[in-house]
Amino acid sequence: MNGADLLCETLLANDIDVCFANPGTSEMHFVAALDRQPRMRCVLGLFEGVVTGAADGYARMADKPAATLLHLGPGLANGLANLHNARRANTPIVNIVGDHATYHLKYDAPLTSDIESLAWPMSGWVQRIGSADEVGRATGEAIVVARRPPGAVSTLILPADTAWGDVSVPLPAAVELAAASPPDEDLLRQAAVALRSDKNTKILVSGLALREKSLEVLSRIALATGARLMAQQSNGRMQRGAGRVPVDRVPYVIEKAVECFAQTEQVILIGAKAPVGFFAYPGKPSSMLPDSCAVLDMAPGAVDIAQAIVMLADALGVSRDVTPQLSARETPAMPTGALTPEAISVALAHFMPANAVICDESVSSGRDFFRHTYGAEPHDFLQLTGGAIGMGLPLATGAAIACPDRKIIGLQADGSGMYTVQALWTQARERLDTLTIVFANRRYQILHGELVNVGAGAAGHNASRMLDLVDPTLDWVGMANSMGVEAARAETADQFADILKSACARKGPFLIEAVI
Amino acid sequence: MNGADLLCETLLANDIDVCFANPGTSEMHFVAALDRQPRMRCVLGLFEGVVTGAADGYARMADKPAATLLHLGPGLANGLANLHNARRANTPIVNIVGDHATYHLKYDAPLTSDIESLAWPMSGWVQRIGSADEVGRATGEAIVVARRPPGAVSTLILPADTAWGDVSVPLPAAVELAAASPPDEDLLRQAAVALRSDKNTKILVSGLALREKSLEVLSRIALATGARLMAQQSNGRMQRGAGRVPVDRVPYVIEKAVECFAQTEQVILIGAKAPVGFFAYPGKPSSMLPDSCAVLDMAPGAVDIAQAIVMLADALGVSRDVTPQLSARETPAMPTGALTPEAISVALAHFMPANAVICDESVSSGRDFFRHTYGAEPHDFLQLTGGAIGMGLPLATGAAIACPDRKIIGLQADGSGMYTVQALWTQARERLDTLTIVFANRRYQILHGELVNVGAGAAGHNASRMLDLVDPTLDWVGMANSMGVEAARAETADQFADILKSACARKGPFLIEAVI
Repeated sequence: MNGADLLCETLLANDIDVCFANPGTSEMHFVAALDRQPRMRCVLGLFEGVVTGAADGYARMADKPAATLLHLGPGLANGLANLHNARRANTPIVNIVGDHATYHLKYDAPLTSDIESLAWPMSGWVQRIGSADEVGRATGEAIVVARRPPGAVSTLILPADTAWGDVSVPLPAAVELAAASPPDEDLLRQAAVALRSDKNTKILVSGLALREKSLEVLSRIALATGARLMAQQSNGRMQRGAGRVPVDRVPYVIEKAVECFAQTEQVILIGAKAPVGFFAYPGKPSSMLPDSCAVLDMAPGAVDIAQAIVMLADALGVSRDVTPQLSARETPAMPTGALTPEAISVALAHFMPANAVICDESVSSGRDFFRHTYGAEPHDFLQLTGGAIGMGLPLATGAAIACPDRKIIGLQADGSGMYTVQALWTQARERLDTLTIVFANRRYQILHGELVNVGAGAAGHNASRMLDLVDPTLDWVGMANSMGVEAARAETADQFADILKSACARKGPFLIEAVI
Repeated sequence: MNGADLLCETLLANDIDVCFANPGTSEMHFVAALDRQPRMRCVLGLFEGVVTGAADGYARMADKPAATLLHLGPGLANGLANLHNARRANTPIVNIVGDHATYHLKYDAPLTSDIESLAWPMSGWVQRIGSADEVGRATGEAIVVARRPPGAVSTLILPADTAWGDVSVPLPAAVELAAASPPDEDLLRQAAVALRSDKNTKILVSGLALREKSLEVLSRIALATGARLMAQQSNGRMQRGAGRVPVDRVPYVIEKAVECFAQTEQVILIGAKAPVGFFAYPGKPSSMLPDSCAVLDMAPGAVDIAQAIVMLADALGVSRDVTPQLSARETPAMPTGALTPEAISVALAHFMPANAVICDESVSSGRDFFRHTYGAEPHDFLQLTGGAIGMGLPLATGAAIACPDRKIIGLQADGSGMYTVQALWTQARERLDTLTIVFANRRYQILHGELVNVGAGAAGHNASRMLDLVDPTLDWVGMANSMGVEAARAETADQFADILKSACARKGPFLIEAVI
């Protein structure tokens, strides 16, 4: 048995049986070891941003990590943007990066680079394996760190000679995972005191607080105390729709966010961060909170969020019999006429099947979706958490591998979609039940707005050349077809509704180019 | 005038008038400033790997840097793989990365990351601008460093408030560029002594030594001394073809490289590095040179390579009247029958026009090209220098912007081509005279070979899933068309020759899917 075999055995012993991969020569012993392990599902991405984004989507839905397989520093570099998003979502990933053999590094061969320097900004943990015998221990540690609440990206650097070297240590058993920490009684007490006051209070949540059952407890707390329950602007996963607690998110647009918190005297954070501007703007604040607003992080770090929420309800004496606020099923009237972002959202609210998984990278075009789908069929809503575009198609790919029996719907801006468009091929190859809706507005719409915001007025020649996706227009139907994904183009609301209805009724990858 | 205006003025004052870009909100003042500068050509890439790879191709052919415009850490991350290749080619690039406003960083907004840590592995110089008034000085320094021989990637981090802040310092003049260092007389003397000996000697060159005139001097030296002139395995740019000095390269395959140097007693390096294995393999050496081989780096660091070569010839008393060895024009017979990599190379040798620029990312499939084209029309040959695939299409894009009157021919492996396939759109938009030949073997062919090399034998299920690009097959013609590039598929040598002939006679972007 060599180090690569030990790596596979350790992953499988710890219930990691999916590996998103794009290997190279230095990973060839790892490939050979995977080839000896039919239990491992190896999923090829034709670019590493697909690999890491899929690993993110997989773990958000599977609640356990996948492994990745990346080729040295440049392969890691290609996957970093989506690891950035994963890090911001606290997604567990065991991110495996091959490197040259230890003794070969000093020769500075062409593919040599400082992998640690590249990895640290997007990882919670980085370790370089020193020998084949170390593979089991290091992989176990990577898994423990990845799965320690709230979850992290563990980057494990695997020099080629540690993969091909013989192993003399025994086979690994499953590692002992770190449990979440018990809630801090003092913080709970402070939160209860705050919620009993008559101050204007918001409970701002993210992470595991956004699962159905925790939201129901939170809703009862909000009803009992008069606090307003809100979600962070961007969240890794949120359970919503009919029969679930309706939760607003902090607005993206800075003026609206500031207005949202203008009267707020105290904020209790549960799995969330205090709201700040996505970007800085001249003369506008960085924090969305009034200076005088008190902030209490009730369940920081590795705290068991679900337990903390239940204990808070108990501390407040909120009865478990109180009915939480739940959204009723609403089927909106079908849109007709011009195809607008709103028409797309309404049609989705109408047709999307129960238990769909929505992967949202619609940027400016999809902002209507949220408000139109409180009463849609229950669904999971996965967002772009780190702002690094190019996450949507890979995220949907990974979510579909985790949830083969659910319809995965990608809300995809056209500009962002082009970043990792190669994911469509993986969707075709793996026969995934992914429906991608491309909001084809033929421009980086959000940036046109920002250009006006900076006082530059309408775009001239050079700005237009950088912000518009015309000349030529992208043919998304042809693009999808070229990678084996069936597709159709919709140019009116009625066309879109017809195509969406049949797309929701079929299985397998499909793409709708929605010309808006 | 704000910092962004000052940045544009400084670039233009230093003859940098092309900016490859993919901006975001934090760069919007820079976009607005570029919009006020019609002299600047702004070229949008739909992914940052296109941006940085195009900047590399541009500078290799223009012999001066372009600027880039990247969006924070994730935007930089997406461009790192091609910056890695640029660094290995010593390509000058002024790599501009936006960041949050200085005061906004402490809020850890979603897109925040450690840009310096990401940038250093692929940069020769990294600097963060502290204020608007610093923009001119810092940009000037970035330009000086980028252009200091042999060339480097300068990464300039531009916080948003340094772009939008008012400038109180005067407008910049052109900076004084650092000249190349004069050759070291002692090293020249040592080289001359070595070349006068009767030892088995190789002169191994790269960089500016591979330009036509320097190669002619080198050829005279080789003829006079009996040394063998060779080029590094991978080179940023090489001038070759009919009427030029034929130079072999160090073989990629390790056994062949070792054999090539087996009898070599001394190596004189001029702009090249001592040859090492691209990867390590169990039981095979890292260095390609015998242990006893002496190595002399005759023109290290910033030394003026062209001058050093002339001075060496003078020191050896090599007459300027000696005719160097030059390749005669040879037009091979047209291939017929099955379409093979060799048939493609022969057809190219037959049809490619004079002064074509070849951008080679054909990996295993294009190895025949080199030996068949010593007698082809004179051309520049640009290679994948750092082994980070996804360079070919962007490199061709940038080379075409630098050389609007020359035919740019990309030799493109299909696996690598998918990495940065978005470059096709930029080729269409900019009406570039790029001809891409996709070697469509439907697999990572080189890795199949490596799998056999590691003793794993033929690929089983999991290895095939990671190494083969079938199920579904990529439709390169449809892919190109979807981004506005005309394309055709060739399945026989005769078909390929016909399509190539007409493609060479037309202007504008075109792609041939060569099914091999």
